Amino acid sequence: MINAEIITIGDELLIGQVVDTNSAWMAEKLNEYGIGLYQITSVHDDRAHIIAALDEAFGRADIVLTTGGLGPTKDDITKNVLCEYFGTHLIEDARVRAHIAELYKDRPDILNKLTSTQWMVPECAKILENRVGSAPLMVFHKGKQMLASMPGVPYEMKIAMEEQILPYLESQIKDNKSKIIHKTLQVTGIAESTLAILLEDYERSMPQGLHLAYLPKDGIIRLRLSSYGELSETEIQHWFDELKRITVEYMIADTDEPLEVLIGHILTERGKTIATAESCTGGKLAALLNKHSGSSVFYKGSVVAYSNEVKENVLKVHRESLERYGAVSEQVVTQMACGAKKILNTDYAIATSGVAGPTGGTLEKPVGTVWIAWATPDNVYSECFHLGKLREQITDRACTKALVQILRILRNEK
Amino acid sequence: MINAEIITIGDELLIGQVVDTNSAWMAEKLNEYGIGLYQITSVHDDRAHIIAALDEAFGRADIVLTTGGLGPTKDDITKNVLCEYFGTHLIEDARVRAHIAELYKDRPDILNKLTSTQWMVPECAKILENRVGSAPLMVFHKGKQMLASMPGVPYEMKIAMEEQILPYLESQIKDNKSKIIHKTLQVTGIAESTLAILLEDYERSMPQGLHLAYLPKDGIIRLRLSSYGELSETEIQHWFDELKRITVEYMIADTDEPLEVLIGHILTERGKTIATAESCTGGKLAALLNKHSGSSVFYKGSVVAYSNEVKENVLKVHRESLERYGAVSEQVVTQMACGAKKILNTDYAIATSGVAGPTGGTLEKPVGTVWIAWATPDNVYSECFHLGKLREQITDRACTKALVQILRILRNEK
Repeated sequence: MINAEIITIGDELLIGQVVDTNSAWMAEKLNEYGIGLYQITSVHDDRAHIIAALDEAFGRADIVLTTGGLGPTKDDITKNVLCEYFGTHLIEDARVRAHIAELYKDRPDILNKLTSTQWMVPECAKILENRVGSAPLMVFHKGKQMLASMPGVPYEMKIAMEEQILPYLESQIKDNKSKIIHKTLQVTGIAESTLAILLEDYERSMPQGLHLAYLPKDGIIRLRLSSYGELSETEIQHWFDELKRITVEYMIADTDEPLEVLIGHILTERGKTIATAESCTGGKLAALLNKHSGSSVFYKGSVVAYSNEVKENVLKVHRESLERYGAVSEQVVTQMACGAKKILNTDYAIATSGVAGPTGGTLEKPVGTVWIAWATPDNVYSECFHLGKLREQITDRACTKALVQILRILRNEK
Repeated sequence: MINAEIITIGDELLIGQVVDTNSAWMAEKLNEYGIGLYQITSVHDDRAHIIAALDEAFGRADIVLTTGGLGPTKDDITKNVLCEYFGTHLIEDARVRAHIAELYKDRPDILNKLTSTQWMVPECAKILENRVGSAPLMVFHKGKQMLASMPGVPYEMKIAMEEQILPYLESQIKDNKSKIIHKTLQVTGIAESTLAILLEDYERSMPQGLHLAYLPKDGIIRLRLSSYGELSETEIQHWFDELKRITVEYMIADTDEPLEVLIGHILTERGKTIATAESCTGGKLAALLNKHSGSSVFYKGSVVAYSNEVKENVLKVHRESLERYGAVSEQVVTQMACGAKKILNTDYAIATSGVAGPTGGTLEKPVGTVWIAWATPDNVYSECFHLGKLREQITDRACTKALVQILRILRNEK
């Protein structure tokens, strides 16, 4: 199998100012191209540190990908360090120059002396076009090994990888026949250790080259089977089917697709719509449900109702219920769901109301108490959960609970 | 300066199934304790790979922190590899055993034979309590160097670091006097290269040991001054004040706090409230505004109004305006803001309506066109933006534009 490594370059990653979301995205894409990712290394904007990381990565991998350090400002040194590393120097590239002139034709302020350093490129590098930015994409060959350098800004990196770097790498590694396959199913309602005991015989009989991983998060465990070229697709499918058979009682999905996508598929297919009314999750459910393109077909909107006033005036929750049972109660959350369904005129609605903390907990309703209601065309269901102690954990888990249940309801209705 | 490295262990990180959000959080905490972070390395759940990474990290750093690989299932091997690395073996720990029994006293299904492996700990390790999970926290001493191993689940890792690992490390490195200082200000409305030219003289005259970094994202550039123990706080403050003076025209904040926090401070202080009406940002603004504890004081809620029906029925946008000007128009977005302010009964409201793509663009209103309106107690403002081509980029930038402008409005009103 062809192996790659990623080196992410930037002080901001090592002082905690920026989360590296790039590497996970790049890893997935590399796997799709049959390229394994062996290691990710984050280093400072520092000459010696970058060179040491390059040496180590080239000692292990066929392909090295670097992100970051390509801006026009002084703190960005990647291009010069790569020149030194590959024993080359900078020359002007007329194509890059023309591209930058075109890119900023309405922004003369940007066409300054610093931006002009961007069309200076290493003489020995293959230059690929960065359609959306000024930093040129660079590929260096080192014997049979390659290095591709791209910007760290996620939008630019993604376009660079998809349109330029991955196709170029593929064209250079023609004999790569290994196929990396991951198959994931999602289960809920079972502890990780209990699940592992259930799968003991299965794991014992698994063939060489097949790997099983457990990924618990927010009440869902993703079970992933991976093969790095050793097994055929038929064999992997056989083992995956067996895994599904054993876990069927707990399984909510036999793909790695997010719950909101699975829900979206069903609703779209049936021409049905959904709305949300959120108190403690405060927009998180809405942001999930409309995250993916095409969501406007099934997702009509949300009322984020933090205050009782909004619950009453917009969602038409009875004042009496609020006063008598409190906002975090079966009565209120049920009315919120029905109110959202009605005013947003949808077939389904989900409502959440809970104590996300850190303040606001009582003896009777401690932090972590969350009521969720699901309104369907003919019915309304509700349930109370205790979802932990930390604000973020509670709201994340509440979203998962809300989505798991509506997915079950939709499936039962088919 | 004391230096640390992080090794994150888990195949899921290297196939793109999980984004490593832990390292950034850990980096920030380490810096607060005066500990620098030299490198982050992500490795597979593989014995040889983990050992190689440990050797390399111990060749550079005083402290090595590892996350992940501590679950009770077969794919998690970190504890056994650490035993091998430090030449020790597993023994039963009565305190951990009692803790796990207490933790799962209502969940007898979890107290199974796999969970029982969790109270086996390396003999030579210092064991710290994992208050919220079953995997014990382990610290190993290697001469003057240390290694701390903790779970990869973010909630567990955070509690482990804050309550146990950082205080323990601090108690062991008593002579650490270096102070790491980062000071960040945020500017907008100027290109990165233009800003760098504006700061040329400043950068040239900066003393040794002071570092300036540029971090552009979604239309904001964060300018960060960093010192790793070489300069006094007074000196750094002097240079930071000078930076503020030069960039005053573009500066929107002289801290690294997110815009929604700054807005929250002002509103809370003045006893004012805000609401949102979101079309293209679809809940992202709501999720931002209620992300932080204390937000319920100033943030009343949101109407996520994807469909025209909701805009009309809930936000009271005139049907005529929708038909005549379309949903993405000054008329509609203005009415959305006023409608939200009215029905949610707040002092301020922000509304967004745009074409987030990938479909839905026209010649007149291409993908990326976003109208934003801001309603204040006495007025309503609106502006049209063109925010790029990618769905995520467009909605992220729209949120930034919406928040920058309301922050300016609030400041002008003081």
